Amino acid sequence: MIIIGERINGLFKNVRKAIQEKDPGPIQELAKKQVAAGAHYLDVNTGPAVDNPAEVMDWLVETVQEVVDVPLAIDAAKMEAIEAGLKVHKNGRPIINSTTAEPKMLEKALYLAGEYNALLIGLAMNEKGVPKDSDSRVAIAMEIIATADSCGFSPSDILIDPLILPVGVAQDHAPEVLETIRQMKLLADPPPKTVLGLSNVSQETKHRSLINRTFLVMAMAMGLDSVIMDANDQELMQALATARILLNQEIYAESYLEI
Amino acid sequence: MIIIGERINGLFKNVRKAIQEKDPGPIQELAKKQVAAGAHYLDVNTGPAVDNPAEVMDWLVETVQEVVDVPLAIDAAKMEAIEAGLKVHKNGRPIINSTTAEPKMLEKALYLAGEYNALLIGLAMNEKGVPKDSDSRVAIAMEIIATADSCGFSPSDILIDPLILPVGVAQDHAPEVLETIRQMKLLADPPPKTVLGLSNVSQETKHRSLINRTFLVMAMAMGLDSVIMDANDQELMQALATARILLNQEIYAESYLEI
Repeated sequence: MIIIGERINGLFKNVRKAIQEKDPGPIQELAKKQVAAGAHYLDVNTGPAVDNPAEVMDWLVETVQEVVDVPLAIDAAKMEAIEAGLKVHKNGRPIINSTTAEPKMLEKALYLAGEYNALLIGLAMNEKGVPKDSDSRVAIAMEIIATADSCGFSPSDILIDPLILPVGVAQDHAPEVLETIRQMKLLADPPPKTVLGLSNVSQETKHRSLINRTFLVMAMAMGLDSVIMDANDQELMQALATARILLNQEIYAESYLEI
Repeated sequence: MIIIGERINGLFKNVRKAIQEKDPGPIQELAKKQVAAGAHYLDVNTGPAVDNPAEVMDWLVETVQEVVDVPLAIDAAKMEAIEAGLKVHKNGRPIINSTTAEPKMLEKALYLAGEYNALLIGLAMNEKGVPKDSDSRVAIAMEIIATADSCGFSPSDILIDPLILPVGVAQDHAPEVLETIRQMKLLADPPPKTVLGLSNVSQETKHRSLINRTFLVMAMAMGLDSVIMDANDQELMQALATARILLNQEIYAESYLEI
């Protein structure tokens, strides 16, 4: 299970402030803290409230790379900002986060993925939005994979995000997302990878950590490969480690939580 | 999700002592406590260390029924003891716990199920033991269902227990059990019900509650219908409630844990 730390995101107040003040301290602290907790990648997102996203992304990536050497998921709404991050990315294979199946966006994202040898997160949505049922999500994922294939990518270069919505807003989506994850394993050989932006499921709920870890464990049972999450949520990390044991992905030892 | 409380079992010291002393107090306390916590059924098991299992089962069932009115799962190795419990059972439809696919045992159990209008737990094992892979577990379940069908039972009268083994002993069984639960939904129409003796997965481990609730959530994602568990493990009950929300089996409300 690949853990992608979610915390360097301009949506968080302390990150937004650090970006505005060009203060590397808080960003670098978050980077080190997430990697120390077990994150294999760090997501880096400028947040929506910046005028010059490409410039900010360049600074964020450089700032993070000064203190940790994990690869990054370059996360932005605009491909210009993503490209700015890819240009200065230096540790391993970056992840482009993300594209929808909308043809122009997908084409641009695939171009960048090829140019910078990046993995690409494809969201199970298109210009019409996020469909509810798993069949429609799978159909959109298939479009992304077919387009990627026609550009010479392996399905395993693509991480399909079936898009979990907040349970308080769209509860009926949650089981559809689980089924979509399961279906991905049957879609191609090698299958595409799967990823979830986990915290979204618990937006505006009272028991965020409990809801996050319960959904993660369910998604892992369905075959989830990677997750964007709070690596510093210790109960979440313990649930993840336990799920890995029960899926026989890690050899059981009494001390498995202490590693 | 049907919760079957596990605590009235002669394997527990306090229950064994109460049985030996014919002291109804501790048994009735456990009965009330489990029902108050949300158990829909109570499992009643004399434990292996009694000379007169039929007589003890009779006493246990009567003792429990004096204080709670949920139906019981009559749990014994010997059909004589099970029948003694069924004879005095009075609240709703009892569960016979359990039979293997071994023909003579299965025949006897089906006879009792018909005689006492009971549901029947069928273990995915036969005279050769518990198979490892899910295909073999499913094949044994299918034998049980086919035999039950030939005796006039609906598949939904049968609860298949795919038999989870302790993760420290047979870790590779755990994902096979999950897959078996999923397959059960595809096996017949109506499908058989599924049940797990949950606590077995964490026998002799250091983090019992965490392992129990993580496996329960995974099994629920696969479609588990009922579970024999510790209804007084609050974190387990919270994980179960959260899984129900995320599977859209219960309408989300911010206060869902307080109900």
